[in-house]
Amino acid sequence: MEKMIERYAVIMAGGKGERFWPVSTSKHPKQLLALVGDTPLIAQAVDRLVGLIPPENVFVVTNACLIEATQAAAPMLPPENVVGEPIGRDTAAAVACGAALVAARDPDGVFAILTADQVMGDIDVFKDTLSDGMDLAEANEVLVTIGIQPTFPSTGFGYIESGDAFGGSEGTQFKRAVRFVEKPDAEMAQSYLDTGRFFWNSGMFIWSVPTLGKAFAAHCPEMKKLMDELTVFAERGEIFQGLEEMYPTLGKISIDYALMEKADNIVMACGTFAWDDVGSWSAMESHFPQDEAGNTLIGSCEQVDSKNNIVYSKDGHLTAVIGAENLVVVQADGVTLVCQKDKAQDIKKMVSKLLSSGSYQNLL
Amino acid sequence: MEKMIERYAVIMAGGKGERFWPVSTSKHPKQLLALVGDTPLIAQAVDRLVGLIPPENVFVVTNACLIEATQAAAPMLPPENVVGEPIGRDTAAAVACGAALVAARDPDGVFAILTADQVMGDIDVFKDTLSDGMDLAEANEVLVTIGIQPTFPSTGFGYIESGDAFGGSEGTQFKRAVRFVEKPDAEMAQSYLDTGRFFWNSGMFIWSVPTLGKAFAAHCPEMKKLMDELTVFAERGEIFQGLEEMYPTLGKISIDYALMEKADNIVMACGTFAWDDVGSWSAMESHFPQDEAGNTLIGSCEQVDSKNNIVYSKDGHLTAVIGAENLVVVQADGVTLVCQKDKAQDIKKMVSKLLSSGSYQNLL
Repeated sequence: MEKMIERYAVIMAGGKGERFWPVSTSKHPKQLLALVGDTPLIAQAVDRLVGLIPPENVFVVTNACLIEATQAAAPMLPPENVVGEPIGRDTAAAVACGAALVAARDPDGVFAILTADQVMGDIDVFKDTLSDGMDLAEANEVLVTIGIQPTFPSTGFGYIESGDAFGGSEGTQFKRAVRFVEKPDAEMAQSYLDTGRFFWNSGMFIWSVPTLGKAFAAHCPEMKKLMDELTVFAERGEIFQGLEEMYPTLGKISIDYALMEKADNIVMACGTFAWDDVGSWSAMESHFPQDEAGNTLIGSCEQVDSKNNIVYSKDGHLTAVIGAENLVVVQADGVTLVCQKDKAQDIKKMVSKLLSSGSYQNLL
Repeated sequence: MEKMIERYAVIMAGGKGERFWPVSTSKHPKQLLALVGDTPLIAQAVDRLVGLIPPENVFVVTNACLIEATQAAAPMLPPENVVGEPIGRDTAAAVACGAALVAARDPDGVFAILTADQVMGDIDVFKDTLSDGMDLAEANEVLVTIGIQPTFPSTGFGYIESGDAFGGSEGTQFKRAVRFVEKPDAEMAQSYLDTGRFFWNSGMFIWSVPTLGKAFAAHCPEMKKLMDELTVFAERGEIFQGLEEMYPTLGKISIDYALMEKADNIVMACGTFAWDDVGSWSAMESHFPQDEAGNTLIGSCEQVDSKNNIVYSKDGHLTAVIGAENLVVVQADGVTLVCQKDKAQDIKKMVSKLLSSGSYQNLL
């Protein structure tokens, strides 16, 4: 009798969310906030899996200092499934950690690497994609990555160039992944779209424990060793001790660099569901309606003669905007941010400045 | 033996201060705030008189609903000297009310009409001007108005055109007032300055009870009647009953229109002290230093790559501004205002909009 393979998910929740400061802070980063929707983004990430992967098979890898806040934000998860890294060592190590958690339950398990802070629509399509991808990863020795069918020439996402079709099943389409490319400029993004071959890189993956292990062994032996040793710790229920012991010896390396840019057995699932990584305050324009003057007003906001602003003012605080254009105005407990929309990348600069001034630790 | 004439001051404190919303509200208007300096503007107005007019001779005319807050803001005054109008009837009625309060104490009294929400420097010069003006108003049947020697071609103030010198005393210079003119445009303001004859209209006056009474009788008999009848009420300690009885029957009329534009016995004192009516948030640039990028940062403010903004953020609330220019950003309890600097006149429009929406009564 064939063994029944269990399905798992590992949700990567290590983001600091500086780009959503001041609402997002180090103690309460983006994934723990209901920036879009009524529940924290991480709760939405778990809820999307209902009917496909049971909560006891869903792990979250986050920062050690965020374990309690994460458990509170995603109370449907068994508390022990929320695992905290003592220090950040980039995504390859977090994937190895997740793989160890899965392997300790089922050495042949198939699991998805998902993100804690993305927003999706067409959830049924997403679930079909994930389910079909898991079937594929169970039946084939391949690394599956989910590409998103682009709807506009975004310069904010990386792209995956796809090649020949892989398999011929109904449902989700799969194609060989040819290469991964960084965020393009506007002209390049348009040329990508024109080819019809390029998909947005969502940072979501599907693979089995053995296939991932082989790929790590071939392309990044340090991660193979980490995954194997953490598995032993996880089997003893001592994953945190394992992380404390192993992590300080590691360099920082991303899963893209460690694996995806090197492996030749990568298959891309063509995701046709609505998707956004909510990368900055500007992304709010995609998730909330605009008034007749192009303003995105979230919470208690009033405007007079103002155009194309994004205003976020919750908890009953009123934000009034007069004669202003192209601003991001954000109200948080104890802080107001006013930022020219095209300078949103400088929020990190402001956070660094405040950090080094030493006066605003509790607001960062 | 000559009778000793007492000196009095009536401070007009009826302003709503909408232009300083959201820090200024109907329950806590501009004159009750320490917008500039460490004490409420009205306390500064009383303190400026120390040594010249004793607190028991200083009256404040304000809105009835602000009596307690005004008493609290100016605790050096006898509480009964703070008099509240049941409804606003513009400045002529408030002057008549003040005159009645003085007349009830001394029918020949000399008093200054001062404002509650202006900022001054060179206080000794101001006091000399006031003292010399009171001497003049005691000795001559004239209406004295204080003009301010302009230091730049302001388009934000009205002007007084002065004529021949009046009297030849040392100390404060006095000139005949030729005419009062409204706020000019920039070109006109410059031409005023070039003549050397034009002074800013400060809205401060000095006169005796009998001289004011005669002027009212000649130019605005309704106000003469009001002043006389209120004097009877004030003599009985029942000024509020008098205001409640008389005010609803009155039209709204300013002291400029009722008297100053009509009388021919007006003398202008040349005020050479520093003076500002702190007319809007933009005025903060005159009263606080700028950083190297022209930003006026009051309270807890940080900026990155921002120019020429005025940011007001007190009570420990942090306001962070990135890449923005020419904004007024104001943080108050429960409200944030973001306003293009040259649209500050639209703050009233915003307040009206919020008032009619009905949702923000407690913030207005």
